[in-house]
Amino acid sequence: MDLPGKVDIREVCLRDGLQIEAPIPLAAKIEILEAIVATGVREVEATAFVSPSKVPALADAADLAAELHRFAGVEFSALVASANGAKRAVAAGLNSIEYVVSASDAHSRANVGRDTAESTAAIADVTRIAHDHGAAVEVIIATAWDCPFDGPTDPRRVLEIATAAVELGVDRIAIADTIGTTTPVRVGALVEAIRPIVDGLPLGAHFHNTRGAGLASAFAAVQAGITRLDASIGGLGGCPFAPGASGNIATEDLVYLLRDSGIATDVDLGAAIAAAGVAQRAVGHELPSALLRAGDRIVG
Amino acid sequence: MDLPGKVDIREVCLRDGLQIEAPIPLAAKIEILEAIVATGVREVEATAFVSPSKVPALADAADLAAELHRFAGVEFSALVASANGAKRAVAAGLNSIEYVVSASDAHSRANVGRDTAESTAAIADVTRIAHDHGAAVEVIIATAWDCPFDGPTDPRRVLEIATAAVELGVDRIAIADTIGTTTPVRVGALVEAIRPIVDGLPLGAHFHNTRGAGLASAFAAVQAGITRLDASIGGLGGCPFAPGASGNIATEDLVYLLRDSGIATDVDLGAAIAAAGVAQRAVGHELPSALLRAGDRIVG
Repeated sequence: MDLPGKVDIREVCLRDGLQIEAPIPLAAKIEILEAIVATGVREVEATAFVSPSKVPALADAADLAAELHRFAGVEFSALVASANGAKRAVAAGLNSIEYVVSASDAHSRANVGRDTAESTAAIADVTRIAHDHGAAVEVIIATAWDCPFDGPTDPRRVLEIATAAVELGVDRIAIADTIGTTTPVRVGALVEAIRPIVDGLPLGAHFHNTRGAGLASAFAAVQAGITRLDASIGGLGGCPFAPGASGNIATEDLVYLLRDSGIATDVDLGAAIAAAGVAQRAVGHELPSALLRAGDRIVG
Repeated sequence: MDLPGKVDIREVCLRDGLQIEAPIPLAAKIEILEAIVATGVREVEATAFVSPSKVPALADAADLAAELHRFAGVEFSALVASANGAKRAVAAGLNSIEYVVSASDAHSRANVGRDTAESTAAIADVTRIAHDHGAAVEVIIATAWDCPFDGPTDPRRVLEIATAAVELGVDRIAIADTIGTTTPVRVGALVEAIRPIVDGLPLGAHFHNTRGAGLASAFAAVQAGITRLDASIGGLGGCPFAPGASGNIATEDLVYLLRDSGIATDVDLGAAIAAAGVAQRAVGHELPSALLRAGDRIVG
C-alpha cells in the first residue's frame, strides 16, 4: 500500500461543526479555539461569512476574526458562499477563503439561491477579491458524490467545476461529501478522476460520518493520494433534526487511524480528545466521536 | 481495486451483541431472531455455551437452541470456550461451533482461565467432539491485533494458532479485533500473513467499532481478500461501562458500504435497519448504528 508520510488536517469544528448548532457565546468559541490550537493543528476553518439570518450560529464571524491574531502559527480560513461574503472575509482580515460550489443544481439553489453554473462563474469575482487582498482561495466542491435532492452526482459535473476553478486561478481545491453518503470505492474513483485536472494545486477532501463510512472514505482518499483532510473535534456537526446522527469525521478518530497507519499529522491525539471534551461541554450535548468515549488504546 | 463480488455476513447480535447486556427474555430474543432472519442473512451466531454465571445474558442458550429448528435455510452457530461448552452445544443440536482462542496470554487467562498454549491445545478435543456429532468448527483467534492487558499482539502468535488449528482439522478460521483498536494497514498486513496458512479453509474477520475505524478495517479486510465478516444489527455490543461506546460493526452500516461498493450480500438493507430497531427496543437503550439514525441515502 502506497501511503503518504503525513496528512494535513484542517480543523472545521468552529465552522462546519457549529453552523447547525444553537448559537454559543463568542467566549465559548474562543475556549474551543484555544483547545484546538493546543492540539498542534496548523489549519483552522474559523467561521463563515454568510447570511446571519440563515446561519445565526456564525453571525459573530467578524468578532471572532478579530480574535484570531492572538494565535500565532495557525492558518485561519473562513467559508464564503458569494463575492459579498469574500469581501466581508478579507475586510475582517482573513488570509484564506473557502468558496463553496455545489455540484448539483438543486443543492446549489437550496444553499445559495443560484445554480451550479452561476456559482461556478462567481469563482472569478471571489478569486479577484481575495487575491487583491493577498488572500488565498480554495474552491470546495459540495455534493461531490450525492445530492440530497438530485441523487447521485454525475462526476463530470465535479470535474467541470474543478476545471473552471483551475482556469480562474484558485489556489486550492477540495471535494466534499456534504451529506455523508459516499464510500471508499466511489471516493477512490473521483479522486483518480480529478487529480489530473488539479495537478499542481493542493487537493483536499471533506467527509461526514452520517452513514458510518466517513473514516473508511477518508482512508480511501489517502490511499488515492489525498494528503489534506477536513475533520472536526468530537465529530461535531450532527444534524439537530436527527439526534445522534454523526457529522464531520471526528478529528481524534481520524488521527488515531492515521497514527496507527504510520501516517503523521500535526495533531496530538490526547489534546484532540481534550478539545472534543471542551466542544461537548460548549454545545451541551453528547458528540458522536468514538475516541471521546473509548479513549486511546491501552498500550501494554 | 480488486474486490469480491459478494461478502457473506454472519449476524452476531444474539451472541456478541447481547452478551454484555442485562439479560432479556427468551421471547425478546426470538423477536430479534425473526427480524434478523427476515434480513436474508444466511449465518447467525445464536448464542454461546459458556458459564451462565459469567455471562448471564446467554444463560438460556439451550432454550434458545431449541427454537432454532423453526428457521429454515439459516446456518446457526454457537460460541464455546472449552470442550465442555462444545459438548453442551452439540447436545443442544448446534451444527456449527465457534471456539475462541485468545492470542494474548493475559486476555486468555482473564477470559477462560487458561493461557494461549492451553487453549490452542484444546482445539483437538473441541474438534473431535464437534466432528463426532457432525458439527463444523471455526476457531476464532481473539485479540488478534491488540490485547487490553498485553498491548499489541505479536502477529506470530496469531499465525501459530492458525497453523495449529489447520493441523488439528478445524473447518474455518477467523481473526477478531476483540477490543476495537485495529486499523486498515494492520488489518491488511495480518490478512496477508495468515492467508497462506489457512489456504483452502474459509477465513473470516470480526471487527468492533470502538475507536471509529471498524468499517474502515472491515473494508481493508475485504480489499485483502476476506469474504466473511461478522456484524451485529444496530452495532449492538457496546460496553455497559463505557456508555455510547460502539460495539460490533453495525450490519446495516456494513451492508450500506458494501452495496455502494458493488459488493453483494444476502442482507436486505431496509430489513436490517428494521431489525436494528427491534434490537434497540429489546435492550432499551440507544444503539450506535449510523443507518438506524440517518437511514438509507435518498436516491433522486
